[in-house]
Amino acid sequence: MTTLKRAREWNIKIGSLPTGPLNKITDVKGVTVGHTTIQQGEINTGVTAILPHQGNLFKEKVVAASHVLNGFGKTTGLIQINELGTIETPILLTNTLSVGNCSTALIKYMLKDNPEIGRTTGTINPVVAECNDMHLNDIREIIINENHVNEAIKNAIHDFEEGAIGAGTGMKCFGLKGGIGSASRVINIEGNDYTLGVLVLTNFGKLHDLTIDGKNVGSTISELKKEKTNNEDKGSVIILVATDLPVSERQLERIIKRCGVGLSRTGSKMSHGSGDIVIGFTTAGHVSHDSKKKILTQTYLHEEELDQPFHAIAEATEEAIINSMLTAKTTVGRADFKLHSLSDYIEKL
Amino acid sequence: MTTLKRAREWNIKIGSLPTGPLNKITDVKGVTVGHTTIQQGEINTGVTAILPHQGNLFKEKVVAASHVLNGFGKTTGLIQINELGTIETPILLTNTLSVGNCSTALIKYMLKDNPEIGRTTGTINPVVAECNDMHLNDIREIIINENHVNEAIKNAIHDFEEGAIGAGTGMKCFGLKGGIGSASRVINIEGNDYTLGVLVLTNFGKLHDLTIDGKNVGSTISELKKEKTNNEDKGSVIILVATDLPVSERQLERIIKRCGVGLSRTGSKMSHGSGDIVIGFTTAGHVSHDSKKKILTQTYLHEEELDQPFHAIAEATEEAIINSMLTAKTTVGRADFKLHSLSDYIEKL
Amino acid sequence: MTTLKRAREWNIKIGSLPTGPLNKITDVKGVTVGHTTIQQGEINTGVTAILPHQGNLFKEKVVAASHVLNGFGKTTGLIQINELGTIETPILLTNTLSVGNCSTALIKYMLKDNPEIGRTTGTINPVVAECNDMHLNDIREIIINENHVNEAIKNAIHDFEEGAIGAGTGMKCFGLKGGIGSASRVINIEGNDYTLGVLVLTNFGKLHDLTIDGKNVGSTISELKKEKTNNEDKGSVIILVATDLPVSERQLERIIKRCGVGLSRTGSKMSHGSGDIVIGFTTAGHVSHDSKKKILTQTYLHEEELDQPFHAIAEATEEAIINSMLTAKTTVGRADFKLHSLSDYIEKL
Amino acid sequence: MTTLKRAREWNIKIGSLPTGPLNKITDVKGVTVGHTTIQQGEINTGVTAILPHQGNLFKEKVVAASHVLNGFGKTTGLIQINELGTIETPILLTNTLSVGNCSTALIKYMLKDNPEIGRTTGTINPVVAECNDMHLNDIREIIINENHVNEAIKNAIHDFEEGAIGAGTGMKCFGLKGGIGSASRVINIEGNDYTLGVLVLTNFGKLHDLTIDGKNVGSTISELKKEKTNNEDKGSVIILVATDLPVSERQLERIIKRCGVGLSRTGSKMSHGSGDIVIGFTTAGHVSHDSKKKILTQTYLHEEELDQPFHAIAEATEEAIINSMLTAKTTVGRADFKLHSLSDYIEKL
Repeated sequence: MTTLKRAREWNIKIGSLPTGPLNKITDVKGVTVGHTTIQQGEINTGVTAILPHQGNLFKEKVVAASHVLNGFGKTTGLIQINELGTIETPILLTNTLSVGNCSTALIKYMLKDNPEIGRTTGTINPVVAECNDMHLNDIREIIINENHVNEAIKNAIHDFEEGAIGAGTGMKCFGLKGGIGSASRVINIEGNDYTLGVLVLTNFGKLHDLTIDGKNVGSTISELKKEKTNNEDKGSVIILVATDLPVSERQLERIIKRCGVGLSRTGSKMSHGSGDIVIGFTTAGHVSHDSKKKILTQTYLHEEELDQPFHAIAEATEEAIINSMLTAKTTVGRADFKLHSLSDYIEKL
Repeated sequence: MTTLKRAREWNIKIGSLPTGPLNKITDVKGVTVGHTTIQQGEINTGVTAILPHQGNLFKEKVVAASHVLNGFGKTTGLIQINELGTIETPILLTNTLSVGNCSTALIKYMLKDNPEIGRTTGTINPVVAECNDMHLNDIREIIINENHVNEAIKNAIHDFEEGAIGAGTGMKCFGLKGGIGSASRVINIEGNDYTLGVLVLTNFGKLHDLTIDGKNVGSTISELKKEKTNNEDKGSVIILVATDLPVSERQLERIIKRCGVGLSRTGSKMSHGSGDIVIGFTTAGHVSHDSKKKILTQTYLHEEELDQPFHAIAEATEEAIINSMLTAKTTVGRADFKLHSLSDYIEKL
Repeated sequence: MTTLKRAREWNIKIGSLPTGPLNKITDVKGVTVGHTTIQQGEINTGVTAILPHQGNLFKEKVVAASHVLNGFGKTTGLIQINELGTIETPILLTNTLSVGNCSTALIKYMLKDNPEIGRTTGTINPVVAECNDMHLNDIREIIINENHVNEAIKNAIHDFEEGAIGAGTGMKCFGLKGGIGSASRVINIEGNDYTLGVLVLTNFGKLHDLTIDGKNVGSTISELKKEKTNNEDKGSVIILVATDLPVSERQLERIIKRCGVGLSRTGSKMSHGSGDIVIGFTTAGHVSHDSKKKILTQTYLHEEELDQPFHAIAEATEEAIINSMLTAKTTVGRADFKLHSLSDYIEKL
Repeated sequence: MTTLKRAREWNIKIGSLPTGPLNKITDVKGVTVGHTTIQQGEINTGVTAILPHQGNLFKEKVVAASHVLNGFGKTTGLIQINELGTIETPILLTNTLSVGNCSTALIKYMLKDNPEIGRTTGTINPVVAECNDMHLNDIREIIINENHVNEAIKNAIHDFEEGAIGAGTGMKCFGLKGGIGSASRVINIEGNDYTLGVLVLTNFGKLHDLTIDGKNVGSTISELKKEKTNNEDKGSVIILVATDLPVSERQLERIIKRCGVGLSRTGSKMSHGSGDIVIGFTTAGHVSHDSKKKILTQTYLHEEELDQPFHAIAEATEEAIINSMLTAKTTVGRADFKLHSLSDYIEKL
């Protein structure tokens, strides 16, 4: 597969902060991402798995937060994230009607390594987020099964692919092909570098609103396109944030709320029909399920230091969204519906 | 099956407001409840389905609200309820690890009657709530399947059974047998009667905290019991509220928050490990999925009228919890673990 | 002034956990409470000040949280508490229409010791909570001024008085005299004692709902009283929580939510017209306004340890409410309106 | 006073939707805005009052909602707006340390016309929002008094002035002069026109982030400026939304959340030190304080119609912010601190 160019390869440079080595969420040490892509007949869908670290997540949870920008969505697991401030499973992305199957598969995956769950300790909180890929995918066929989930988790690597892959296979963004995109930023506090990474699953927006680094390009593309674009905005966007910053769950929530800034700059109005959900975690220090000590220690940033992360996450989100579109190849899906790649037009803009 | 007596048959009368004819959530016209109970070997679990009305819920949604008293839980569907103020499926109760399977089954159930979902209109938001029945049930066997869900929905009737049945089969409450309980209250506004009904799935509390109508009975039962009670409080309680009151989703949320009052009076401290979740809906006027009119009308109560519903829902919640325990028969489950019925002790209190 | 007896002196013992030495919020080391009481003609009102510690609160903030049980209230300062998780001023209680004057006075008090505010650093977030004392007080005369506030802060001591004093001077609770009440509990974690203290300003409830330790006494008092009781429930309750437990702001919020449990057990239905607000702080470690270090450390409890604090705070809240009523003497106020003390009836119950 | 040109007079046209006749919040029928400006020595501050309608707001409340984008702020009144979904006073804007005085003055203003407050009915919820104008104003002198508030309310008119006036007198935005700005949009539903208007008080942002309609101009201005700009971002922005759309309070909250989209497009990262608060109301139907009927009727939009208002409010917010800067004249304030007007640079951009 030929990989399509990312934003920076097209000389599109969002913001001013430096990126990590890959300019992906996996620049945060320990984080990996894996995909399962399913394309057969009317089916164009998949699963993407994000692993916050490579150990046993149930035993060593990560500090986490969530933020609902617009709640027309079916993401599961947020109630417990909000109450306890932790994530204890890989995070899965998939299509809307497959959240149930992915939850069950994720539970089974966790049960394997944790025989005490449901016996001597409590249960597990699967985190699964979704967008509706009905335009390219026969979503009514609830095709995703346990094997697909296990495969996505097993496929998780450092330098993962973006675009029309995994959960992004069937997604539509600004009337063009959407999918998986990522970006990262590095900031320096007291002489140490910290990374903030973003991974998006993009499935939102009307073509004429599409804006790249402040420039509206949607109208131009609209004229370049021969076919009429269905300008409904019924999609969603899932935004995952990883960082190695020492932040509390409250601070993390403040940081991930700023994903809305980057999202807004791409032209999104967070439309009614969109489930715009952000989930974030930090790898800086784990929360042990079992702990001999009852009083624990957490490091966090002095509140005045948060402007840098706010800035970083806004930039990374914007770039991740543009990356998701540029790297997503033109795709023909269910009922011969065709979505063009942004990369088909980028040279003419 | 001999039905165990409910609170009022034991002359326990919570509060002062009159009950509906059945003193159950189904006193709210149109509401039905069905169970699937699964007991085989180490399995003691099930599904309970609550149908807000008997029509097509996707096409005619009910105004709804949710409230998280304590968020250590895996209930799914709340994000969209909070954003849109509606419920568009039956509500399912089950064990914690079966939420995924129930979600998928519920989606499939809805797809059958709504061929336009995922084609010409968006997707569906399944609402599934849960408690952890690991003490009596081998919860790691994720036994619940599509047939169980369909059966529970099909079984839905007006005068349903309470106790160790459906989702309540394996539940444990205050160190005794928990399960499904219900109660209702009738209030009068401007000469018209309105009903507020509650259905609970009880799986919380330490024995010595159990309080019936203000009287601590847990300590006495603790002495009467020969076996030592594991006094951990790791459970949850799900509280469903139905009403025919004309209220907005904001008013409904205010009403269902008062379920916490009734819950508190039974001895609950809303313990850390408990997912204490309330979901409510009103049948007074539906929200059409498709509407020719773009400007609609909603009736609601003058805010000053809310004290009566607050009072009613606190009473009904308390009584429903006591009913869930009294009607739940002594059960032996996984690994020969035995939970006694409150009704075994009630005459000695 | 003869001090009226508290609950334990009447042999009313709420719950099972041990109390601190004073059984007051000031059992949390460093916390002090001061009152200004204003009684002249139709005026029966005042100010109560709670000081989280004796240093400069702006420079050394305390970790804090708030929870709105019912939001028909005018408490100010919560937005910033929720965003930043800290309190940086003494907390004031007063009557509803005097929140503005108390805010200004509190700002001026803080400006005195912090010349850099509004010059080289930002501003200050005054925290002022309120109940409506219109039954006994001519609340339309906005009588509270800067001197009253300064006096209340200056009066702050360890062994403060309860009852019809300070902000509690004009309050009405369950149709009887309300006011200021307090209680505390001590728990042990890893061999160390920690204290949770509660101070309440009570101004809520209908007489016939009044419940003491599970026993409804309101109906009996209603019969004992000669005058007819106005059974409207238009008041509010403010609940302040102090602790020395090492908890994060998220954990603190979880703890203070359980004040609702204690409140519910007294007979409250959190009525429509009531502003039921909880504000809490921990003295375990301060957050410095200026910090040379940018990465800081916070101690917190392993989440599984929270059940003890939940239990403690529910008990302390319930007892503090009963104390507020027992210690509040019979008072005649505006337009000769008379509110009896609960202590007038307690021997007959 | 010469009025500086607004965005459209400079040929800056944000978005695509038509504006109302004035392109101000007062295009919503019945809404008026008044200012009191105070400039004397080191004092540069003021009050701005927004009147949702011209009747008795306590007796005829407007449906309202609020949304906290970033909560480092001292706005008062939101707890009750969120609980009850109504506003019952004019809304005041002022400097941070004057919120208390404005609250008291607003209460007194309301008491005058409503003799039953504090006698036969409850109290009043003053809504006062703020930004910190310490750079140009000696904010420690809490100069605002009752007369200033009464004057601002009395001054309220249809075609009000923008810029360095009223509460905007001392504000700083993107390192330039901030202040009061406004804009409006008109949408059509079922053949009827509806207006959404925005008024902002701008006091946020770093110069190099300033972006006008997608184009970063901050860096250019930074080079054009001779003086070094203090690039701290410690300010806030208050965004008021008025509409005549028939929407529920839940829908209104959804709409006003999209003010964050417009704000983001101007270059804001919603910085840590910023209190970014949105308050909105609709004039479509009032909620009567006293009502003979206990069951009332509310009109609202079919949810699918919300994309137009979302779009409109994002556009109007962005334009109102740019208007607030363009119309705010260069001002020299406390300690000879000078803030340039954006209009000084606009021709060179």
